[in-house]
Amino acid sequence: MASFASFADLEACCLDLPAGDCAAAEAVAGREASLTKPPGSLGRLEDVVAWLARWQGRSPPRLERVDILVFAGNHGVTAQGVSAYPAEVTAQMVANFQAGGAAINQLARAAAANLHVVSLWLERPTADFTLEPAMDEAGFLAAATRGYDAVSPACDLVCVGEMGIGNTTAAAAMAAALFGGGAMRWAGRGTGLDEQGLARKRAVIDRALARHADLIDRPLRVAVALGGRELAAILGAVLAARRRSIPVLLDGFVATAAVAPLHRLNAGALEHALAAHVSAEAGHRQLLDELGLPPLLDLGMRLGEGSGAAVAVLVLRAALACHLGMATFAQAKVSERP
Amino acid sequence: MASFASFADLEACCLDLPAGDCAAAEAVAGREASLTKPPGSLGRLEDVVAWLARWQGRSPPRLERVDILVFAGNHGVTAQGVSAYPAEVTAQMVANFQAGGAAINQLARAAAANLHVVSLWLERPTADFTLEPAMDEAGFLAAATRGYDAVSPACDLVCVGEMGIGNTTAAAAMAAALFGGGAMRWAGRGTGLDEQGLARKRAVIDRALARHADLIDRPLRVAVALGGRELAAILGAVLAARRRSIPVLLDGFVATAAVAPLHRLNAGALEHALAAHVSAEAGHRQLLDELGLPPLLDLGMRLGEGSGAAVAVLVLRAALACHLGMATFAQAKVSERP
Repeated sequence: MASFASFADLEACCLDLPAGDCAAAEAVAGREASLTKPPGSLGRLEDVVAWLARWQGRSPPRLERVDILVFAGNHGVTAQGVSAYPAEVTAQMVANFQAGGAAINQLARAAAANLHVVSLWLERPTADFTLEPAMDEAGFLAAATRGYDAVSPACDLVCVGEMGIGNTTAAAAMAAALFGGGAMRWAGRGTGLDEQGLARKRAVIDRALARHADLIDRPLRVAVALGGRELAAILGAVLAARRRSIPVLLDGFVATAAVAPLHRLNAGALEHALAAHVSAEAGHRQLLDELGLPPLLDLGMRLGEGSGAAVAVLVLRAALACHLGMATFAQAKVSERP
Repeated sequence: MASFASFADLEACCLDLPAGDCAAAEAVAGREASLTKPPGSLGRLEDVVAWLARWQGRSPPRLERVDILVFAGNHGVTAQGVSAYPAEVTAQMVANFQAGGAAINQLARAAAANLHVVSLWLERPTADFTLEPAMDEAGFLAAATRGYDAVSPACDLVCVGEMGIGNTTAAAAMAAALFGGGAMRWAGRGTGLDEQGLARKRAVIDRALARHADLIDRPLRVAVALGGRELAAILGAVLAARRRSIPVLLDGFVATAAVAPLHRLNAGALEHALAAHVSAEAGHRQLLDELGLPPLLDLGMRLGEGSGAAVAVLVLRAALACHLGMATFAQAKVSERP
C-alpha cells in the first residue's frame, strides 16, 4: 500500500496533522490531583500520562501493545571512512536482532514490548552524499512508506530506533543543514571514532553541506539528499503514528535528526513525540533543544537500536501504574491540604 | 537484637566498613567489552551492573530479591508550621501503604520489589529541635537498630525511602549543619509550601542551627539533634547493607540527608549506595554534589516513599538483562572494530 502518491503528497501530509485530545489530557490531570500525593509530586510521571492520553485520545490511556520499530539502512558515505566499524556490521547486527542477541532484544523483553526489525534494501546503500544526493524522491518515498506501513493501528505506543553504520554522519549533516552551525556543531564520535576519525567525519559533512547548500530551506529535500533510508522510514512512521492517534518515543540522535524536518515544516508536528533520552552522541542535546523536546532520561547511552526508548517505556509503564492504581485522598481517608 | 551496644559502637562501625569486590566489578567490565555494542555505548547501564557486582561481591550480580524499605516517623518541629500538610498524614499514609493505595505500592509492583513499611513510634514524635535535641542517643540508636534489622541478608538490593510530615525540615537542617550555607541553601518547599511557609521553614531551620551550633563537627550528633527516627533508621539500614554485601538505592532528599553523616565520618561509606534520582526538592542536587553521588534519574519527582528508587530499580533490571542476555561479538559473528 503506497501511503503517499507523490513527494508533494508527503509534504502536504506534514502540514495537515491532527491535533491532540485536550479533554483526555485534562481528565488525566484531574484524576492526578485527587490521588494520595502532593500535587505534581510525581513530576514527569504525571506529565507523561497526560501526554499519552492527549495523543491516544483516551483517558485513561493504555499501554497494552507497545511496538519498537528498528529500521536498518546502509550508507554510501561509509566509503569516506566516517565510522569506527565496517559497513557489513549493519547486516550482521540485523541478524543479531533476529537471533535475539542484541541489547534491544533484552530491553524490549524487559519493557514487555514487541520488537519489529525492518531492513531497507541493505544490499543497496544510499549514494555517497558528498558526490550526489543520498536518494532520489522515489527512493525516499519508498523508505518513508515502509516506515509508515510498519505502524500498526492496534498499538498504543510506538518506539522508533535504527541501525546503520554511517548514520550519525547523515544525522549530523541533516541537523547542520536544518539548524546551521556546520559539522563542528553536530558531528560526534558515533560508535567510537578517534580524534583523526572525527576530523575526517567533520570534513566529509562540511563537504556534503557545501554540495547541497541549495536545499537548506526545503526540509524534506534535506532528508532526501543527506539522510538515509532508515531515517526516511522513521519520518514515515512518526507521521503514521500521528494520523493513527499513537504517541511516539524517539530514541537517540539519529532518530531525532530523522524527524527534525517535520518540525521545520510544521512546528507542531512532533507534539505526539517524546524524547526518550538524551544520548551521549555530541549533537543530541542541542538538537533536542532546537526541537523543544526535553529528554526523559539521561543515561549516557549512545547505542541506537531503540535502546533508550525501550528503557523509557519502563518509566511510562510505571507512571501509568501509579495513575491507574493509586487511591484518592477520599478513598484512603488521607487529609488534604488545609 | 540490638545491632549497636552503644553510640560509640555505632560510630566505630561507621569507620570500619568492608571494601567492595574489585575482581567482580572487573569481571563484569570484561564481559561488557565482549558484547555486541560499541564499548561503553550503554553508558550508565554498564556502570550500574559493575557497581552491583562490586558491592554484592559476585559476577554476574543478581536482582532476584529487591526490598524497598520505607521508614515512617513523626516530627515535633511540625508544631512550628513547617509543612503544607498536618502531622496526622504520616499515619494516614502508612495506612495507605498497608492498603496498597500509595504511589510506592504501584511502583514496587512495577519493579517486582517487596515493599516493607516500618513505622517508628508514630504516636511519639521527636522533640521540637528548635527547643531541644530531636532525640537522645538511646532514641536515635533504637531507630537506627530498627533500620539495621530491617535489612534481610537474603536480598540483592535495598531501596531506602521514608514518610514523615516535617522531615524535609529535618533533612535541610542536617544538610546545613554538615555542609554549611544555612537554611537559605537547603530549605525547599517540601510537599508544597507557599512563599510565606517557605520563609517560616527557613527561619525555623536557622533557629535550630543556632541552637545546636556546637554539634557541627560531630556528624552523628547532628543526626541525633536535627534528624528524625525515619532518618536514623535509613542510616542504620545503609550500614547494615554495607556489612551484608547488599548495594543500596537512595531515594530522595530526605533519604540522602539521612546518610550524609556517614559520608562526613568516612568518605567511602556511601560507595555501595547509588542515588536513584535527583528530586525536585530544592536542596537535593547540591547535596548529591557534596556527597559525590551523580543521580541516575532526573524526573522532577519529589514524593519520597522510595518512589524514585523504585523507578530506578527498573533501570537496573534492564541493565542486568542486557549484561546477562546479550550475545558476544564472537557468538553473533559481528565484526569488531578493525
